[in-house]
Amino acid sequence: MTTGTITTPVLEHLDAFKKISGEAYVFVDEEVLGQYAQDQTEDLHFLPDVVIKPGNAQEISDILKICNQYKIPVTPRAAGTGLSGGALPHLGGVLLSIERLNKIIDIDERNLQVTTEPGVITEVLQDAVKAKGLFYPPDPSSRGSCMIGGNVAENSGGPKAVKYGVVKDYVLNLEVVLPTGEIIWTGANVLKNSTGYNLTQLMVGSEGTLGIVTKIVLKLIPHPKYDLLMLVPFKSLETAGEAVSAIFRAGFTPSALELVEIEALEIVSKMVDSTAVPITPETEAHLIIEVDGNHMDALMAEMEAIAELLTGYDAGEVYFADDAQQKAELWKLRRRVAEAVKMSGYTIEEDTVVPRAQLPALIRGVKELGKQYHFHAVCYGHAGDGNLHIRINKPGTKNSQSDPEMIQSLRALFQLVQSLGGTISGEHGIGLVQKGYMDIVFDAKQLDIMRQIKKIFDPNNILNAGKIFEA
Amino acid sequence: MTTGTITTPVLEHLDAFKKISGEAYVFVDEEVLGQYAQDQTEDLHFLPDVVIKPGNAQEISDILKICNQYKIPVTPRAAGTGLSGGALPHLGGVLLSIERLNKIIDIDERNLQVTTEPGVITEVLQDAVKAKGLFYPPDPSSRGSCMIGGNVAENSGGPKAVKYGVVKDYVLNLEVVLPTGEIIWTGANVLKNSTGYNLTQLMVGSEGTLGIVTKIVLKLIPHPKYDLLMLVPFKSLETAGEAVSAIFRAGFTPSALELVEIEALEIVSKMVDSTAVPITPETEAHLIIEVDGNHMDALMAEMEAIAELLTGYDAGEVYFADDAQQKAELWKLRRRVAEAVKMSGYTIEEDTVVPRAQLPALIRGVKELGKQYHFHAVCYGHAGDGNLHIRINKPGTKNSQSDPEMIQSLRALFQLVQSLGGTISGEHGIGLVQKGYMDIVFDAKQLDIMRQIKKIFDPNNILNAGKIFEA
Repeated sequence: MTTGTITTPVLEHLDAFKKISGEAYVFVDEEVLGQYAQDQTEDLHFLPDVVIKPGNAQEISDILKICNQYKIPVTPRAAGTGLSGGALPHLGGVLLSIERLNKIIDIDERNLQVTTEPGVITEVLQDAVKAKGLFYPPDPSSRGSCMIGGNVAENSGGPKAVKYGVVKDYVLNLEVVLPTGEIIWTGANVLKNSTGYNLTQLMVGSEGTLGIVTKIVLKLIPHPKYDLLMLVPFKSLETAGEAVSAIFRAGFTPSALELVEIEALEIVSKMVDSTAVPITPETEAHLIIEVDGNHMDALMAEMEAIAELLTGYDAGEVYFADDAQQKAELWKLRRRVAEAVKMSGYTIEEDTVVPRAQLPALIRGVKELGKQYHFHAVCYGHAGDGNLHIRINKPGTKNSQSDPEMIQSLRALFQLVQSLGGTISGEHGIGLVQKGYMDIVFDAKQLDIMRQIKKIFDPNNILNAGKIFEA
Repeated sequence: MTTGTITTPVLEHLDAFKKISGEAYVFVDEEVLGQYAQDQTEDLHFLPDVVIKPGNAQEISDILKICNQYKIPVTPRAAGTGLSGGALPHLGGVLLSIERLNKIIDIDERNLQVTTEPGVITEVLQDAVKAKGLFYPPDPSSRGSCMIGGNVAENSGGPKAVKYGVVKDYVLNLEVVLPTGEIIWTGANVLKNSTGYNLTQLMVGSEGTLGIVTKIVLKLIPHPKYDLLMLVPFKSLETAGEAVSAIFRAGFTPSALELVEIEALEIVSKMVDSTAVPITPETEAHLIIEVDGNHMDALMAEMEAIAELLTGYDAGEVYFADDAQQKAELWKLRRRVAEAVKMSGYTIEEDTVVPRAQLPALIRGVKELGKQYHFHAVCYGHAGDGNLHIRINKPGTKNSQSDPEMIQSLRALFQLVQSLGGTISGEHGIGLVQKGYMDIVFDAKQLDIMRQIKKIFDPNNILNAGKIFEA
């Protein structure tokens, strides 16, 4: 399968694109191209030839038909908050932004479903359904700026996933424009479906390589009435990891169970000018633990029982967030860790995931690899799911693509992850920057199946080509 | 895509099969062939040419390589409890039973996962993990006889799905033998995974058409400590359907919410000789409602609040199952409905699913279609999920395949389901008997994508060919 070879220069089709989407929504000026040249991945940027902001599925279909005919690379983009380079237009061509598809179409309170366009900000969607007592749980740390369409593309998770699941667990049905221009629905708006192959689940997490999602039907659940939040310090990062597994083994199902290494907390506390959490020399990491439900007494009992359990893991003094403001402060710290550590020099991020009891082994391994390969790493993430974000700071190396020693060290990291029963990405996707490591977790046959699936949907390989695997 | 044309008669390969699986596990005698000629679907039966019971994935691989080379049809089979004809060897050839792959390989208490072979009885698996305080929720009514491999093939549900989800929500990773003989794993043993296309979810619910599952890694959760069960009579079947939607809108998440029409209850009560539920002339249907959790007080409050809510829907006197025995009695009645109504002449079953608020419209429509097309139907099923089983009794018509008026009436039924936003199968699969109706819910493009996916995995179309869609 080869990357599409453009048969005529992209810019010869500008008039056609303008006729489809309107002149106001087709951009070739450098400023706009520059804005869409990067996402949140490392320091990478690639200029597209043209940025198009279509207004609906039919326009997207018409654009894709032209691009398919002339084999023009198309990179779909939601909010550009991705961390694996999925929205980077590394082959030039058309950058297709879905930002104008930003309407919540219907909140169906009778069936607890919402139908939305992909360009709605995730938090806006959450707030809109919450106003009706409903809950859409998956909320990446970037929920205030990311879009639900991007979340579907990457199969995003976030802190609530540990109790409520990830995006794939909420998507019931998708309207998708295929690279060849057809518009299809992948399933039906039902909670259970055993009718043919699961095209919905094939589309979720396919990183914009199989089609462009234009409508999303999500399952909603009743919003829990109460939640409680606590922060627990640990003297050892590894012991914190052990405590995570113990909480589940004891029968608890927290609604969030996050791990933050002390250095990350220190950096983010400085950035947001917060003294909410004391940074003490004897603390190596914190767990942030939330429980939620409809019965406050039950939650109080549960929280106390968890705190009691953690004393057996050498936990320090537990800090309970007493009110909404304290909770918000703690969550703000957690949610802004990624941004803070990146600004602080930790530009390379890996999104490893292992069976949760393997967290201590993974954490130990990361630190050893750091010594061996001359990088410094901080760890944080969704420990309850075994999903550990590893931010890497290697002086002089701003991205993971060019430095041979960095590439070697990442191979070693992913081999470790694989040996622990884990895989490369838990919620950020493979995109551009991790595709070189897919051979560590998949053999030739598995990758061949994936490539052939790609070919069914995109015979000319125009849509986000060279993402997930080499074209 | 054409069905594989056998290049040499199946029986010429008997020696090769015996060499692979051992002489004791290759059967051509009529008695055994007859046992494997049917599943639980209507009155259909088709004799295979040979029954093979391999002992492991490697043997399955070796058998499939021969069948692939000589284009011999292969029908995989677990327990044969399916209701859509997925395990029927309608093309003859090899019937490949996975019954000997019946070991639970590992219950991983540290990670709350179980790795199992596909031939383990679902209830045996549930009991084994429950003994360690763990919970695998999806339990079809046939859990005492069905196998977990079959559940994966059909993406089964059961009464707990309304709170806990269906099989697809628990499968983390699968070992699969492809029709071409390769053995692959589909993913990793992790709770979150955004690493390439979701081959695991593609395999779940693919009804044995893409590969034969030989190992299954399932997510487990802590087993809830308590559950409460009640039975609520309604004067009108439609009002019962309306009450279902109201329960969720009010913010409750029951762990089961089943609907049983009075005629079905009457039939099953007679069959199991039970007087647990009084059958009164003013009752048209019952809801069976369960809540579960770790705090008894909270559950009691919830159950009372639901009962209170239902008085607004003209519910009759609520019957609370007071102890384990009463609960077991009620569940036994519910679980044996399918068997009882089938024995009573309702041989044709449809597995419709709609958005749950559309249940009353579906129920009303079924009754009208019955009048129009001269059949009698009883309804029951997982109302909380909008998943309604419709059992049809039409004197003189034992299956759905031969009577033109029956085929016409099923088309009308599925068109109604589709118009209500639903689809053909919620948990039983399409198999043999529903494949003629796929065009009602999928257009040519969607079906073409599915056929092409089939072709990637099974280029010679040997594995369960002619299931889900026409070969």
